[in-house]
Amino acid sequence: MKAYRYRTRVTWVDTDAARVAHFSNYFRYFERAEQEFYNKLGVDPFGGGDDRNIWLPRVEANCRYLSPCKLNDMIEVELTASAIGAKSIKYEFGIRNLTTEKDAAKGYVVVVSASASEGHSIPLPEDFSSRLRKFFRV
Amino acid sequence: MKAYRYRTRVTWVDTDAARVAHFSNYFRYFERAEQEFYNKLGVDPFGGGDDRNIWLPRVEANCRYLSPCKLNDMIEVELTASAIGAKSIKYEFGIRNLTTEKDAAKGYVVVVSASASEGHSIPLPEDFSSRLRKFFRV
Amino acid sequence: MKAYRYRTRVTWVDTDAARVAHFSNYFRYFERAEQEFYNKLGVDPFGGGDDRNIWLPRVEANCRYLSPCKLNDMIEVELTASAIGAKSIKYEFGIRNLTTEKDAAKGYVVVVSASASEGHSIPLPEDFSSRLRKFFRV
Amino acid sequence: MKAYRYRTRVTWVDTDAARVAHFSNYFRYFERAEQEFYNKLGVDPFGGGDDRNIWLPRVEANCRYLSPCKLNDMIEVELTASAIGAKSIKYEFGIRNLTTEKDAAKGYVVVVSASASEGHSIPLPEDFSSRLRKFFRV
Repeated sequence: MKAYRYRTRVTWVDTDAARVAHFSNYFRYFERAEQEFYNKLGVDPFGGGDDRNIWLPRVEANCRYLSPCKLNDMIEVELTASAIGAKSIKYEFGIRNLTTEKDAAKGYVVVVSASASEGHSIPLPEDFSSRLRKFFRV
Repeated sequence: MKAYRYRTRVTWVDTDAARVAHFSNYFRYFERAEQEFYNKLGVDPFGGGDDRNIWLPRVEANCRYLSPCKLNDMIEVELTASAIGAKSIKYEFGIRNLTTEKDAAKGYVVVVSASASEGHSIPLPEDFSSRLRKFFRV
Repeated sequence: MKAYRYRTRVTWVDTDAARVAHFSNYFRYFERAEQEFYNKLGVDPFGGGDDRNIWLPRVEANCRYLSPCKLNDMIEVELTASAIGAKSIKYEFGIRNLTTEKDAAKGYVVVVSASASEGHSIPLPEDFSSRLRKFFRV
Repeated sequence: MKAYRYRTRVTWVDTDAARVAHFSNYFRYFERAEQEFYNKLGVDPFGGGDDRNIWLPRVEANCRYLSPCKLNDMIEVELTASAIGAKSIKYEFGIRNLTTEKDAAKGYVVVVSASASEGHSIPLPEDFSSRLRKFFRV
């Protein structure tokens, strides 16, 4: 499977008094990779004036922490999809610390497709699903 | 002038690698005090199904840092209003570190009243202004 | 098993453009409950000038999202421990939205005991473990 | 004066229920630009095993908000220094919203040079000051 990769740096506010990136921030790194992935793909699943009208709320998030990330470390988030369903997607994430050359974390996030205006789950837009499958070659 | 006081604690995620609360978080402490102040006052300036339809976007924020706050320090935010105008409010904030018994910060935030649906500035709702004046006795 | 309960409110900065609390913030609510639990217990596992010298880094974090939390909702975090090992603890969390009267999330966090100065894992201090067991009655 | 420019994107977690970037996050954008500026300059003012031993704690921070930034907007932070003193620096920041083509914010941050181990203020390291002056051509 092809992967999308996104690089960012550990900033001051990402760290805590233990002098490492706070564990909650890994989920934010995951999400930033997901956002840039959509930009890369040329899709705006969140609508932009057109007929799309969906949110992708998260129903589960998980992260296993493998080695710490410190201030100013450069990290790379690898994003793949292990399941693309009719109404949900399971994204898998890996974070590689390029500064320490160690795996920093592995995790996943399950998102569902929901009507932005009404809240209930709805099928993923077909063009969105097909672009995902095309990118990941699944 | 009467003041509103709100207490909270410095959490792990509030701190950074310098082992003190990150400077941006003082603005979040300010805002939490403002939110609880509105709850205390019994007003919901942000509407709740009724005819109120305002946001209070910030047009300026300032903070001077006087002494650091560390993990688990108990802090008290003191909120007063130095100006209540037709369309804006200037809130003054002081943060007292109750653990170190030192003043931690002084700051202010200027908010304007804006239509939530249309964005442009509108007069502060009269009942909101009058409750503010009554609380602060100005 | 006895549980520790901690209440807090969903603040502006906790929410995102979907007008609900951002999924990463649930982990921060978990951690705040854990911090106040230690304060309640009268232990400072992170040392405070004495001979304790530990961190409790997280090795895994998980959350399942059950219903959204909106601005100003009052939430209650329930904390229990499903495993207290020689060098690790598994905390279980539930978040109840007191405003909507719905379960908002369920999750867990696994922490290990590590030397703050040297980083490697070390046994949990005996007095800390025994206070945990006494509180949870396990 | 020459300026340093840093681009980033407004992420989900940066926004709040008003569907714009939260006012506290502008200070985080400022800081990220400052961090990348130091990387660009090839200085690590925070030490890295060598004889440098300083922090740059903030003594004042200010931001005026000019126009909102929304989810996925690309923004550019412009960093200049209006004062480089013996023990302090005043950085000026401007944020341009490249998506809306509007100025989003103007602000400043005053930092002092402090001993990381002992906390009191100390002179800025000479090589750091001279690189700053060289970059900004002041």
